[in-house]
Amino acid sequence: MSADIAALLQTIADEAIALTDRGAVADYIPALANVPPRQFGIAVATVDGALHRAGSADQAFSIQSISKLFALTLALQREGDDLWQRVGREPSGTPFNSLVLLERESGVPRNPFVNAGALVITDVLCHRYLQPERAVLEFVHRLLSRTSVAIDPQVARSERLHSDRNAAIAHFMRSFGNLRQEVAAILDAYCAQCAIAMSCAELARAALFLAADGVQPGAARVLQAADARRINALMLTCGAYDAAGDFAFRIGLPTKTGVGGGILAIVPGRMSICAWSPRLDATGNSIAAAAAIERFAATTGLSIFR
Amino acid sequence: MSADIAALLQTIADEAIALTDRGAVADYIPALANVPPRQFGIAVATVDGALHRAGSADQAFSIQSISKLFALTLALQREGDDLWQRVGREPSGTPFNSLVLLERESGVPRNPFVNAGALVITDVLCHRYLQPERAVLEFVHRLLSRTSVAIDPQVARSERLHSDRNAAIAHFMRSFGNLRQEVAAILDAYCAQCAIAMSCAELARAALFLAADGVQPGAARVLQAADARRINALMLTCGAYDAAGDFAFRIGLPTKTGVGGGILAIVPGRMSICAWSPRLDATGNSIAAAAAIERFAATTGLSIFR
Amino acid sequence: MSADIAALLQTIADEAIALTDRGAVADYIPALANVPPRQFGIAVATVDGALHRAGSADQAFSIQSISKLFALTLALQREGDDLWQRVGREPSGTPFNSLVLLERESGVPRNPFVNAGALVITDVLCHRYLQPERAVLEFVHRLLSRTSVAIDPQVARSERLHSDRNAAIAHFMRSFGNLRQEVAAILDAYCAQCAIAMSCAELARAALFLAADGVQPGAARVLQAADARRINALMLTCGAYDAAGDFAFRIGLPTKTGVGGGILAIVPGRMSICAWSPRLDATGNSIAAAAAIERFAATTGLSIFR
Amino acid sequence: MSADIAALLQTIADEAIALTDRGAVADYIPALANVPPRQFGIAVATVDGALHRAGSADQAFSIQSISKLFALTLALQREGDDLWQRVGREPSGTPFNSLVLLERESGVPRNPFVNAGALVITDVLCHRYLQPERAVLEFVHRLLSRTSVAIDPQVARSERLHSDRNAAIAHFMRSFGNLRQEVAAILDAYCAQCAIAMSCAELARAALFLAADGVQPGAARVLQAADARRINALMLTCGAYDAAGDFAFRIGLPTKTGVGGGILAIVPGRMSICAWSPRLDATGNSIAAAAAIERFAATTGLSIFR
Repeated sequence: MSADIAALLQTIADEAIALTDRGAVADYIPALANVPPRQFGIAVATVDGALHRAGSADQAFSIQSISKLFALTLALQREGDDLWQRVGREPSGTPFNSLVLLERESGVPRNPFVNAGALVITDVLCHRYLQPERAVLEFVHRLLSRTSVAIDPQVARSERLHSDRNAAIAHFMRSFGNLRQEVAAILDAYCAQCAIAMSCAELARAALFLAADGVQPGAARVLQAADARRINALMLTCGAYDAAGDFAFRIGLPTKTGVGGGILAIVPGRMSICAWSPRLDATGNSIAAAAAIERFAATTGLSIFR
Repeated sequence: MSADIAALLQTIADEAIALTDRGAVADYIPALANVPPRQFGIAVATVDGALHRAGSADQAFSIQSISKLFALTLALQREGDDLWQRVGREPSGTPFNSLVLLERESGVPRNPFVNAGALVITDVLCHRYLQPERAVLEFVHRLLSRTSVAIDPQVARSERLHSDRNAAIAHFMRSFGNLRQEVAAILDAYCAQCAIAMSCAELARAALFLAADGVQPGAARVLQAADARRINALMLTCGAYDAAGDFAFRIGLPTKTGVGGGILAIVPGRMSICAWSPRLDATGNSIAAAAAIERFAATTGLSIFR
Repeated sequence: MSADIAALLQTIADEAIALTDRGAVADYIPALANVPPRQFGIAVATVDGALHRAGSADQAFSIQSISKLFALTLALQREGDDLWQRVGREPSGTPFNSLVLLERESGVPRNPFVNAGALVITDVLCHRYLQPERAVLEFVHRLLSRTSVAIDPQVARSERLHSDRNAAIAHFMRSFGNLRQEVAAILDAYCAQCAIAMSCAELARAALFLAADGVQPGAARVLQAADARRINALMLTCGAYDAAGDFAFRIGLPTKTGVGGGILAIVPGRMSICAWSPRLDATGNSIAAAAAIERFAATTGLSIFR
Repeated sequence: MSADIAALLQTIADEAIALTDRGAVADYIPALANVPPRQFGIAVATVDGALHRAGSADQAFSIQSISKLFALTLALQREGDDLWQRVGREPSGTPFNSLVLLERESGVPRNPFVNAGALVITDVLCHRYLQPERAVLEFVHRLLSRTSVAIDPQVARSERLHSDRNAAIAHFMRSFGNLRQEVAAILDAYCAQCAIAMSCAELARAALFLAADGVQPGAARVLQAADARRINALMLTCGAYDAAGDFAFRIGLPTKTGVGGGILAIVPGRMSICAWSPRLDATGNSIAAAAAIERFAATTGLSIFR
């Protein structure tokens, strides 16, 4: 199987590069807009400790919304089920809806992966930690058993300068009492967390506990098995912005995507997969990375829907 | 395992009856409002042909939205992937959103399980069949290899008399050109299809092809394996009205619910489960049936998220 | 003054024809789409009995939404203030909003001039009259003291064949219990009423009671003075679709517009003005007719805002 | 007439006090919540220089949104018609809509009297003045030819501490590029401007230019006549939050209301009226003040709709 995976990843990487001319790099901040677009990487980490890679699997990129996965896990560790009083577990549809629903649902965001929900998670971490972005980063370090991962300060700063939309959402929730810390502090932490830079290989390894019943292979228990299962469920229903349903339909695996072009997918009980390529489709998901993971799932027959 | 399942179902049925005093029976039509509420049934059909049951597993009830599963499968058989030009695959959030999104998305419903989407499916069947509700019923007969299932004419009539909301949605889509037949004919067929009466045992058996890679055990292929997988994905992301995310989180299996109190769940590769109890929570899902399936999944460890 | 008005209308008509190449004729039904676009007419009826006209002031056109004024007046005569239990008096913003607000406000439309509100008025007339469109037409005949005005059957039929959007709104309100008659009957009457054909001269004369404290000059009292005042207020805040605020700002007079290209304006205590030209702007209001009335108001200094 | 007005105001004041037990004082900030509720004042300033008053007409109260009138006038003086590129002239319906429409209309608020629009006006003033709230205050001083009016610092501070909702709106517009200054500076100025304290007599006098073709009686021209007319039109269509349509219907005069309980009304060519009483209805408008102005208009027959 290991040989098969390695060969398959190589084939996928060879083909994926052809897709890197489609779509557009995220351009709302210069630091992302300037990433050379024609890159592709993929890595697979298995629960028995193997790590396969192809393409630019060791090239660090901005993980952006994939960081929501680590922040959520950390907040769950600290708050337990109380967290679900302040954030829901339902898909929200379009970003437009997200705001309308926030009004109808009195400032409680639909799920922890929309920006509103991630800001609530950051608010929780701001309450628990003096430097919440460091806490997320150090959590990633523990998951990887190494401290090489860092926040890209230029991306963080640039993100913060363009955070009016998130500031609007944060103040809106705060007007309902569902954010408790100062908005400026929350945005500082949130933008820094999104600016963590990691490679496909690092991301696949760091998220492996989600494929392994909550235990990081070779390390400690991260979450109860039930909570790992629940995060996988949230990834499936809400992990790919407004294309979550389509990803479930096409790929059939829990995924979390980021506008840096990364996509992380979990095969429960088996492995985690991370693919990356900077150019995005209209829903903000990487075209080549999504195609690569779809291809991987189809070829291996690894789908949670059988 | 068989003995275990039988015993577990009995325990669940014994306990579930205590939950039947919570929630409220659907009351928008008298035919549903008058169902005696303190009933519970559960059945499990396995891909190797076993059928287990407990409680009122052979009591027929109105399958309501669970019929959307059969209608969708039939439409897919006839139309293939062209169907996805006219209906999406994304969760829609609240019913309120559903209407707002219909406007924003030019009359293309978010998925085949919201009412708007089911009406598009019925429109397709109206184009293909003179009596589309008979076509759905006969499809169910083929799945069961028996013709004992029927449409409850009183429920169908009552439903039709209270179909203003669905008529609004249908005319709205028709104004965008996404319904082609006459609205009255579509509503006749739709209300009749929702009024199919089946028992837990029948529903579990009829839907077994979704757990068996698209082949109805002991009978013919119904769908390609890929399409069965896709329907399971749609059930997971969109099958439980605005509680789909919560069902994925709590239960971890593809489900389809109906306001008649039935809930169907699929364990891909293994079995299908149907529980029923008339009283609903605020999202329109049966309280006792959801609790029963959650309990079944938790006890057996059967979750697609591991 | 009379000579002045006559001269001014002629100047306006001469200039307006140059504007008739801008905008687009309503094209949702062939009967409207085929109207020759480069026409313009204007007429002014004063409370002391004078009638001035210029351009094609005697050319009949489809009055469309201007009919809502006559239907509302007739319904008010019959129902009195009870009517305001079923329809509001607030502007609604865009058509999109209109539907969203209908949901939030439990099926009570924002005002009698949005389509939803006009359908409630028609529902009231359907309850009072066997042939509500005849009742509206005969009311117009009484206002004009002549029976020459008629419904254009081709427009009415064509309108009815393209009434899915209005059917959606009607069924939606009916699901809240705010329509009581059959939707089909309401739409028949509504489409027929919109298809009344009148000229600028006829419209200016027919609506003169709104400028004359509720008494039709030379004829009977139509409404109490307070109700005439209130209809003028509704025209100002809600009479020009989603451009009502802009019309108030630019023109400063109560107006009611129709997609047939007609615009009726009231100068309380003084006169009524009707201009017509088929081509519309993006808000559905006639470009040349609006410009003509704006010019008339600016030149004469007739504004209710001084 | 002067004697009549004086007598009428006294009668209205005597009766209005009975209405002061209905509704609720604005309670979102303590500084407003603590105002003794059973107070009522009314003043009328005529274009020929008379000033009539009854009740607590000289008691200063927080003018709140009535300040938007002065800010808009000042911004118009400075920017001219360019201002209308950044703010619309249409009613917006409910506050809920206001946000939804802001999204649909790319950050351009519907009109200068919704909070979003007022924040754009403040942004303009922030660009023009180092201390925009002083500029508004000094403009009021010029209108009154006296410098006795002041900003209540306690109200301003309290308002600023509870400005999350306005901060959300401001950041949202800024994300569309329709705010240019820093949000914090805009909110400081906006909250200070809302905290101006004035009496009924002062407000009636200060706004008299709107009744006098843009010239402040006894002083200089403030606006062109056409702009005064336009502001009256905006007051009529948008001046009373989501009750503007109802105010036009009931009262028939341009009004601007504030949650401090003040209501200013203009009789073009004749006079300005200001009534005040702290308790509000559900739309945020003073119950006793609205009833008083309605009574005044009905008794005198002063309506712009005749």
